[in-house]
Amino acid sequence: MVSAHTDPDYSAAYVVIETDAEDGIKGCGITFTLGKGTEVVVCAVNALAHHVLNKDLKDIVGDFRGFYRQLTSDGQLRWIGPEKGVVHLATAAVLNAVWDLWAKQEGKPVWKLLVDMDPRTLVSCIDFRYITDVLTEEDALEILQKGQVGKKEREKQMLAQGYPAYTTSCAWLGYSDDTLKQLCAQALKDGWTRFKVKVGADLQDDVRRCQIIRDMIGPEKTLMMDANQRWDVPEAVEWMSKLAKFKPLWIEEPTSPDDILGHAAISKCHNRVIFKQLLQAKALQFLQIDSCRLGSVNENLSVLLMAKKFEIPVCPHAGGVGLCELVQHLIIFDYISVSASLKNRMCEYVDHLHEHFKYPVMIQRASYMPPKDPGYSTEMKEESVKKHQYPDGEVWKKLLAAQEN
Amino acid sequence: MVSAHTDPDYSAAYVVIETDAEDGIKGCGITFTLGKGTEVVVCAVNALAHHVLNKDLKDIVGDFRGFYRQLTSDGQLRWIGPEKGVVHLATAAVLNAVWDLWAKQEGKPVWKLLVDMDPRTLVSCIDFRYITDVLTEEDALEILQKGQVGKKEREKQMLAQGYPAYTTSCAWLGYSDDTLKQLCAQALKDGWTRFKVKVGADLQDDVRRCQIIRDMIGPEKTLMMDANQRWDVPEAVEWMSKLAKFKPLWIEEPTSPDDILGHAAISKCHNRVIFKQLLQAKALQFLQIDSCRLGSVNENLSVLLMAKKFEIPVCPHAGGVGLCELVQHLIIFDYISVSASLKNRMCEYVDHLHEHFKYPVMIQRASYMPPKDPGYSTEMKEESVKKHQYPDGEVWKKLLAAQEN
Repeated sequence: MVSAHTDPDYSAAYVVIETDAEDGIKGCGITFTLGKGTEVVVCAVNALAHHVLNKDLKDIVGDFRGFYRQLTSDGQLRWIGPEKGVVHLATAAVLNAVWDLWAKQEGKPVWKLLVDMDPRTLVSCIDFRYITDVLTEEDALEILQKGQVGKKEREKQMLAQGYPAYTTSCAWLGYSDDTLKQLCAQALKDGWTRFKVKVGADLQDDVRRCQIIRDMIGPEKTLMMDANQRWDVPEAVEWMSKLAKFKPLWIEEPTSPDDILGHAAISKCHNRVIFKQLLQAKALQFLQIDSCRLGSVNENLSVLLMAKKFEIPVCPHAGGVGLCELVQHLIIFDYISVSASLKNRMCEYVDHLHEHFKYPVMIQRASYMPPKDPGYSTEMKEESVKKHQYPDGEVWKKLLAAQEN
Repeated sequence: MVSAHTDPDYSAAYVVIETDAEDGIKGCGITFTLGKGTEVVVCAVNALAHHVLNKDLKDIVGDFRGFYRQLTSDGQLRWIGPEKGVVHLATAAVLNAVWDLWAKQEGKPVWKLLVDMDPRTLVSCIDFRYITDVLTEEDALEILQKGQVGKKEREKQMLAQGYPAYTTSCAWLGYSDDTLKQLCAQALKDGWTRFKVKVGADLQDDVRRCQIIRDMIGPEKTLMMDANQRWDVPEAVEWMSKLAKFKPLWIEEPTSPDDILGHAAISKCHNRVIFKQLLQAKALQFLQIDSCRLGSVNENLSVLLMAKKFEIPVCPHAGGVGLCELVQHLIIFDYISVSASLKNRMCEYVDHLHEHFKYPVMIQRASYMPPKDPGYSTEMKEESVKKHQYPDGEVWKKLLAAQEN
């Protein structure tokens, strides 16, 4: 057994697209890492920058599929991906900034921009390359047109009640049993009914921690588990047989994210081609979209539509830096215009780092309330950016000085 | 249909590990890109460098599995891979340099270092993480122990006859029919019997070009086709039905390299987990290892052993910058110590960029002759490195000056 993500210390690549518009409008995009590696992502953002610089926003969104392909199928940069790892993270950051800019220009939050968008325009944002055996442009259009029925009611419902969330904040590995109990008690008090626990480092430890949580939340509330790629396939089977008695709804990332055939139930994927196969192989019972690992709204749209075609519930991955802020737009749009269902659906929530965002998520009664400010909720507070900028920000200066001593 | 790799212009990340040994011994490693993107790979190499700097070679190769895992499972850098794209290319470059250094210190070419290595030591270089459902350490040991039988004879045979190669140099897209005919005639004269043609840009064009080649080489010689990820799955099926009459032995990369279920016959893969699944899914009829995309000798060893277990012939991918130089070591070792078979096996050969290497490949009678110089054949000529270094080399200075004017 090998542990993964042993010493995360989030950092983020933050892309700001400035324009010469009179209103001084700016598009902000983000993708994060667990610390080291952001410098590599920034290097890739710079390699992609020429696709955006001195372009007209109208031309970009007027042929958004073409622009997406320019970024992801650059004849030379394709080699160091394609559509995976560092370049795809950089692509997400750049495209997230474009979507923020577009939504701000339209004076709408991204979810509302998508909901109001004509199905043909929506489809023109999607690159169907490599997925036409499962989803064609015509399929996508048909799904979106069917989604028009009852849309207004669902939008009202979202504005009133929000989108159901689950919390991962109580049970990280490394928390003491006391901390775990305290956080769990507080979460129950705050109205949470769905909980995710991190597992995989030590089986005895996991059994004890799952027992504590299940005892506290009772038999009816929902429990999920996340192993963060820690196991080989036989190990995952053995481990899970010991944890099954706590009745988890799913076990997340039991093994390598590249292992399609070895995967069970739910997985973070790096692009639409991997999602397509998991759906084809009927290996997924839940589908986790990611707003910073996939190619922004564009690629997530294709995944939401494939999930609808296979009738697999989408339960977005969130946390990190800004994932909650971004992904709420996608899942709210999904409910209003695509899935029209809340059955077995919920969006992850982690209660950290929201203080750096200008338009942080709003959780009420364990639900994401639809954001009302224009844009993709990606913009960070000026003060936070200034403080955390590498290497000249105040926080870094202190860290680097401490290292030298 | 979208084209891929439309404007390749090879560049390479070249890693040199210097030591304080009295003999001034240096390890050289390489991974290449199609042009842009090498700066991103170099950035990732720098992020990995601390794992190598000030370490003792003995400690590294003494626990090579542990070292491999350090590089590929760094708690923070894992996020921007894992084991794929930019970080994995960087890992390959660094590890290739370590293998070059080790082999030079032992005074042997890498293939001979591997052939002479005790099976237990060989196995200790491999990270079995995520593949134990298909290949355990015990399986690997058993295969290698069986491979000891007849090893000496096979080594003699390799030294006398070399390893069978095929040529991709005649039929790149963009060559005129005249060039194609001329190159093909010359290749036949030089004794080549196996030919690969690039396809996928234009069907009529492909039909005409395949016809020319098949006519020239006759019905008995071997023809392969490579589509470089140009198609969606339905498109690949349609296209290939039109090219089937030219009797290709295989069609390479018909679609996305991430599409395991959509794949036919042969594919370049980015890590051992993808190879494992293609073998499990019986989706492969030939397996292409890659010495610059996979995690160096270490990860290629695991793939060679899995291929042996499934009895799938290995036909390495070569070309690019230095791929031929490196991969010959792996396939010669494979024949002598693992597969013990040449049936349906051959190694790609492309006749460019060898002039930059200190120990270039030697082809005789359309076969790779085993290299005799110590190391991994990765070392480049000082003059070539100096001239092509970015941005201060002579070649770059000229290019950059021309750009400014």
